[in-house]
Amino acid sequence: MTANKSGTLYGVGLGPGDPELLTLKAARILQNASVVAHFRKKGRPGHAWTIAMAHVNARATEAAFEYPVTTEIDFRDDAYVDAIRAFYCESAKTIMQHLADGSDVALLCEGDPFFYGSFLHMYDRIRETYPIRVIPGITGMSGCWTAAAAPITYGDDVLTVLPGTLDRTALATHLKNADAAVIMKVGQNLNKIRLALTDAGRVTDAIYVERGTMQGERVVPLAKLDDCAVPYFSIILLPGGRGRRIA
Amino acid sequence: MTANKSGTLYGVGLGPGDPELLTLKAARILQNASVVAHFRKKGRPGHAWTIAMAHVNARATEAAFEYPVTTEIDFRDDAYVDAIRAFYCESAKTIMQHLADGSDVALLCEGDPFFYGSFLHMYDRIRETYPIRVIPGITGMSGCWTAAAAPITYGDDVLTVLPGTLDRTALATHLKNADAAVIMKVGQNLNKIRLALTDAGRVTDAIYVERGTMQGERVVPLAKLDDCAVPYFSIILLPGGRGRRIA
Repeated sequence: MTANKSGTLYGVGLGPGDPELLTLKAARILQNASVVAHFRKKGRPGHAWTIAMAHVNARATEAAFEYPVTTEIDFRDDAYVDAIRAFYCESAKTIMQHLADGSDVALLCEGDPFFYGSFLHMYDRIRETYPIRVIPGITGMSGCWTAAAAPITYGDDVLTVLPGTLDRTALATHLKNADAAVIMKVGQNLNKIRLALTDAGRVTDAIYVERGTMQGERVVPLAKLDDCAVPYFSIILLPGGRGRRIA
Repeated sequence: MTANKSGTLYGVGLGPGDPELLTLKAARILQNASVVAHFRKKGRPGHAWTIAMAHVNARATEAAFEYPVTTEIDFRDDAYVDAIRAFYCESAKTIMQHLADGSDVALLCEGDPFFYGSFLHMYDRIRETYPIRVIPGITGMSGCWTAAAAPITYGDDVLTVLPGTLDRTALATHLKNADAAVIMKVGQNLNKIRLALTDAGRVTDAIYVERGTMQGERVVPLAKLDDCAVPYFSIILLPGGRGRRIA
């Protein structure tokens, strides 16, 4: 009797949403993995799964982890933190069981796994026990500035990436000090972000992007956006150009 | 006699260097383009070409534009700016001639075309005259943090991307205000960057990465790097983690 060789966890970056923006490497890993794991909202096929499914091996086992809560509870609430922590812990256990059985597991990651990825919740729990390989992907923000036909940085521009969850003063300070900026997680923070951009004197240059590179893609100058509510994963871009020295 | 239909310029992001990190879309565009253009140093096959060549159609015409100067002249010198401006102007003319002839042109871009891309010198000169489509790519920095197994941002981290050409005070100020940072264009700026990281109290967390995802890849904690000279395109990473709330 020989000891089982354990499997490898692959964190597979899927890019910004257009399935053709998968890398050749991601496609190869998906074709070979015996287990394909992903996170999704309850009762949905899952966004990551939709991007990747054309490349998943028909004989692969699907492991879908459904978020117990999304926006029903405030994310600063302890109950949210407890629920989500237990969920990530259980998901990591399931993945590790497959790895212990000798199966390679491909965990689907929208965007780039090491850039604000929920993959990191698995990475931090598993990396000391099993081998992990990460396949980078095109970030969502890169998909958005491409969709907006808005070069984000030239030459010596400084770029700052800001979560929309920061407070108005912090946002405005960062926006004043950067040549270019990307504000993520807009959703319920839209009004605050607009005020911070106004404080920083830069609201007229801002571009709102929703579903960049995907069906339903929408690009609107922020000054012309009059929606009352926008999705959490929408992005606001403030393109640079100070570094554009050689005209 | 009918008027020629003009071609389309494709700015094709090639990703960080590993040819398998090309997207499916980039591979398709390269297979179909009748002209493949790229920039390179004099007398070299060209880095972009090396990444892409497996996907270029054998019947495609290669248009290689060779930089007239690289580091022989200081980039702040007027002579450098004049020489490089004339070079970009001539290169754009050549591309536009192919487009006028009805050929689609794929212009190779390392990394992501809209993120500090030299592609932008062509984009700004051609976009009002001919149709342009941009294919995003994985950025070089994303390749570097993947190579370093260093998640760059968690949760609510602020990320700042800094050109190493900034002065020491500006670098230190930005480094103090960000949770995570990426410093590009290290090269001759290495010593200054090290001092700025020390000023900001963050030199022990910094990671030096050279040729991320490519042959000859090298990852070294900055504190242990004792090279006198490093390549221009090397990167220094300062990983985040303040946003790592759900442990």
